[in-house]
Amino acid sequence: MKSMDQIVSLCKRRGFLFQSSEIYGGIQGFWDYGPLGVELKRNLKEAWWHDMISGHNELVAPANAPGPFEMVGLDCTIIMHPQVWKCSGHYDLFHDHMVDCRESKKRYRFDQVRGRWVEYADRSQKIFVSTLADIETELDEVRRRAMKFFRLRNKDADKISISNESLTIDRLDSTKEVLAPDAKNLDTLTEPREFNLMFKTTLGALGGENDATFLRPETAQGIFVNFKNVLDSSRVKLPFGIGQVGKSFRNEITPRNFTFRSREFEQMEIEFFCHPDQSQVWYKYWRDRRMAWYTKLGLSSESLIMREHHQEELAHYSVGTADIEYAFPFLPEGEYGELEGIAHRGDFDLRSHMEGKLNPATRPMEVELGENGKAKYRGSGRDLTYRDEVTNEKFVPHVVEPSAGADRGVLAFLCEAYSEDKAPDEKGKMQTRTVMKLHPRLAPIKAAVFPLVKKDGMPEIAREIYGELKKHMNVFYDEKGAVGRRYRRQDEAGTPYCVTVDTESLNDKTVTIRDRDTLEQWRVKIDDVVTDLTSRIQ
Amino acid sequence: MKSMDQIVSLCKRRGFLFQSSEIYGGIQGFWDYGPLGVELKRNLKEAWWHDMISGHNELVAPANAPGPFEMVGLDCTIIMHPQVWKCSGHYDLFHDHMVDCRESKKRYRFDQVRGRWVEYADRSQKIFVSTLADIETELDEVRRRAMKFFRLRNKDADKISISNESLTIDRLDSTKEVLAPDAKNLDTLTEPREFNLMFKTTLGALGGENDATFLRPETAQGIFVNFKNVLDSSRVKLPFGIGQVGKSFRNEITPRNFTFRSREFEQMEIEFFCHPDQSQVWYKYWRDRRMAWYTKLGLSSESLIMREHHQEELAHYSVGTADIEYAFPFLPEGEYGELEGIAHRGDFDLRSHMEGKLNPATRPMEVELGENGKAKYRGSGRDLTYRDEVTNEKFVPHVVEPSAGADRGVLAFLCEAYSEDKAPDEKGKMQTRTVMKLHPRLAPIKAAVFPLVKKDGMPEIAREIYGELKKHMNVFYDEKGAVGRRYRRQDEAGTPYCVTVDTESLNDKTVTIRDRDTLEQWRVKIDDVVTDLTSRIQ
Repeated sequence: MKSMDQIVSLCKRRGFLFQSSEIYGGIQGFWDYGPLGVELKRNLKEAWWHDMISGHNELVAPANAPGPFEMVGLDCTIIMHPQVWKCSGHYDLFHDHMVDCRESKKRYRFDQVRGRWVEYADRSQKIFVSTLADIETELDEVRRRAMKFFRLRNKDADKISISNESLTIDRLDSTKEVLAPDAKNLDTLTEPREFNLMFKTTLGALGGENDATFLRPETAQGIFVNFKNVLDSSRVKLPFGIGQVGKSFRNEITPRNFTFRSREFEQMEIEFFCHPDQSQVWYKYWRDRRMAWYTKLGLSSESLIMREHHQEELAHYSVGTADIEYAFPFLPEGEYGELEGIAHRGDFDLRSHMEGKLNPATRPMEVELGENGKAKYRGSGRDLTYRDEVTNEKFVPHVVEPSAGADRGVLAFLCEAYSEDKAPDEKGKMQTRTVMKLHPRLAPIKAAVFPLVKKDGMPEIAREIYGELKKHMNVFYDEKGAVGRRYRRQDEAGTPYCVTVDTESLNDKTVTIRDRDTLEQWRVKIDDVVTDLTSRIQ
Repeated sequence: MKSMDQIVSLCKRRGFLFQSSEIYGGIQGFWDYGPLGVELKRNLKEAWWHDMISGHNELVAPANAPGPFEMVGLDCTIIMHPQVWKCSGHYDLFHDHMVDCRESKKRYRFDQVRGRWVEYADRSQKIFVSTLADIETELDEVRRRAMKFFRLRNKDADKISISNESLTIDRLDSTKEVLAPDAKNLDTLTEPREFNLMFKTTLGALGGENDATFLRPETAQGIFVNFKNVLDSSRVKLPFGIGQVGKSFRNEITPRNFTFRSREFEQMEIEFFCHPDQSQVWYKYWRDRRMAWYTKLGLSSESLIMREHHQEELAHYSVGTADIEYAFPFLPEGEYGELEGIAHRGDFDLRSHMEGKLNPATRPMEVELGENGKAKYRGSGRDLTYRDEVTNEKFVPHVVEPSAGADRGVLAFLCEAYSEDKAPDEKGKMQTRTVMKLHPRLAPIKAAVFPLVKKDGMPEIAREIYGELKKHMNVFYDEKGAVGRRYRRQDEAGTPYCVTVDTESLNDKTVTIRDRDTLEQWRVKIDDVVTDLTSRIQ
């Protein structure tokens, strides 16, 4: 069993991750990537961009796809017009509910104390959960699913039932039956109040409420509002996808589990537009393709699950939603945390940004209604339909959204990579070795070059090899200390190959290459080192 | 003379840049990158990261460098602990000053009406500037330089004089002598009020002033507060640089000139740490190296200047600051706009983040003083000194900061690339051609592949070539319409090479490659297309 403490400690010690603003005591829910971490994260994002967008062959149907399709990229701003968030539903519905305890004077997230209520209610059935922490994970899971369908949540959240874990949360009309965490009596909590999860800020110097806007809680909306711009400028034809990588922000009440739940995080999102009749088959395609992407880059299939949402979890416009989940070491055995959600969003988003379509009777979103009984917020008035050139059919495309978290991806690959084994030290004695078994595409440093000793011209040869390799990949040079210690340092950094110049090198112009995982060593001509390593890291 | 209107129009039409939230009327100072723009910007950032960080050979002194040095990367959060901005000086001093006009009821940036004041004062000397727009550019320049040295600004801004343009702004004690833009009388303006340029937001659910923090106005501070983390985790030795690419935010009162002055923008910053005795020579090195980088990627040396700041513009701790400036087409003839600033920052920043060093008597920053006469905000209490392993000397390193704007870089390369020439159309008739002469490294699409006609097996061959090329670079396939029109479309997209499959291809297995800029065409064996293009785009 991997220990999260050891992973966190290695991340800090070797420069993968630092707590943001650490010298000022840190800031909860924010993490900086150090010299190794930034390269790892760049490699993950680059792999995604290449595999999904820039390297995509639009003329050939990929394996298991119903046909060929186009993919283009986009990069939108974090701050957008506030109306975007009104029409998307985030302004009204992207909430947590907070309650205050009159006894302890503490503030809680409503679904955390709702957990307490479950506990209290279950005492009679002898299912007693003694601490809040014990039930938090389970309830977080409920909350997370509810968040995903926050449009459903506003009225129905308390009715959500998770059948396979047989957890049913009935409608809770008051907080009277809740036993607050540090309270001794019932009925110490205030009624829940809404707390929007978007970070608010103000544009310009006037500072009025009209100038208030928000940091995006997801990159997706930038794609929807640019749908027509992309169509008009790129001549793309349905089906096609628009991909974007960028930061999003959520004012989480309880950020935790290292970088897993952060307030500032990076997403890699695709909005895939297709004909409504085809959307289910594309949904299945993307679900399977995204799952395969993670395993190809090294997540073991035993630690990875595809969780199809139950019918009752789905928004009613949705054909399906699946989460790709990973068995993070901070979770109890058998539990998984979300890496990516693949959601069938129907025509919900494009329709929300069109004017006159916001008839509450047909609209699959619970919007606050204005005095006239119509939706309070209206779309842009722009025509966001698509006209098929061949059939002349005009329609609002359906959308399949594979939405991945870049930071969660990095965290999963770090956790997966972390391992300890036994390897012989300098004197042949077996020692515990910590090694980060990162896929070569993801590894921050692809190879390290060492002279065995700092004399006899070995450093000169090693430096030349380093210089040659550096033109092709990120490599590291190290001539300090025992070579065994240098190997260990590279093992911890996840460097897949070490190139060592030794006595033989002086005679036959060969070097040793060592494999990080198998510890296998082989000799390669100095002139062939670049070719040998280039082919191995691809 | 290039017209900015034509460049802006091409950017939108071809998908380089869209106004953010355009369907909702847009949002001032925010821009989205479309399918072509995102690839261009990615290429620029990738070129910077490779040339400055990951491709840097730390064992060999680059040309004109005093010695070899190390470079590592970092990726910090946009939201940091508020104390970071208090100790950096941004909280107190990163201000614009606003005034209101009682006559027109309009609000202005103080330095804009200060411009009016210059105008008014100069009437007697017959240097009369008739419109605000005429003098805005010049005054923006003043303001921009002042912003750069905002630590000086708080008390001395009005004294700044730009000697080579013989513009002297004396201390302005009141606004009584100012003629406001839409006013007929003097003395209609209120006294200036401070307006901080950082975007403010609130962390957590409590929403009190203690939870207020800011979106970073520069990426630099993330590097300074992580200085010790990087030292401890990476074993780097002085001199070394830490580079970072990321978004910053400034609540500009008057965003304008397309993407030039945006409220959300991306920076590519290096903080280069060295021994104080060496800082001047490193400053010169970085200044020249960064200038060479822009010309190597295609900015013409006629449109680019290095402007050394005058002695009186410098903060007194600074040995020198230089701006790399470009003759953007929206500026009047002979004027330049900043692309990058290379600043010698001394030990100012690291010292600011250390505790107990904030003695106002020795501190080169005008900080607000607390009741005890000491600085109001204190650093972190952490030791941010460096100990030289060889000499055992302990000191606070000096810093040279090459700070580039990624969006401004993209804009300069777009402006530089835009050109019109004459080229023969299908029928040999000379027509005006719009072509984006982007450097192949920066071009969003490296090559386009066309079958001359959609028959005789040409599409099949072209599709195969496309598939092969796609493994190595971003390429585009097009079989629609006259081949001349397809060339024109690629010229506008900045695609350096077009590969055409024609009748001859069927016989001798060769294709035509056309050069975007010279219009030269040559034949290449189909099997050699990848090699030919790969070598040309590097």
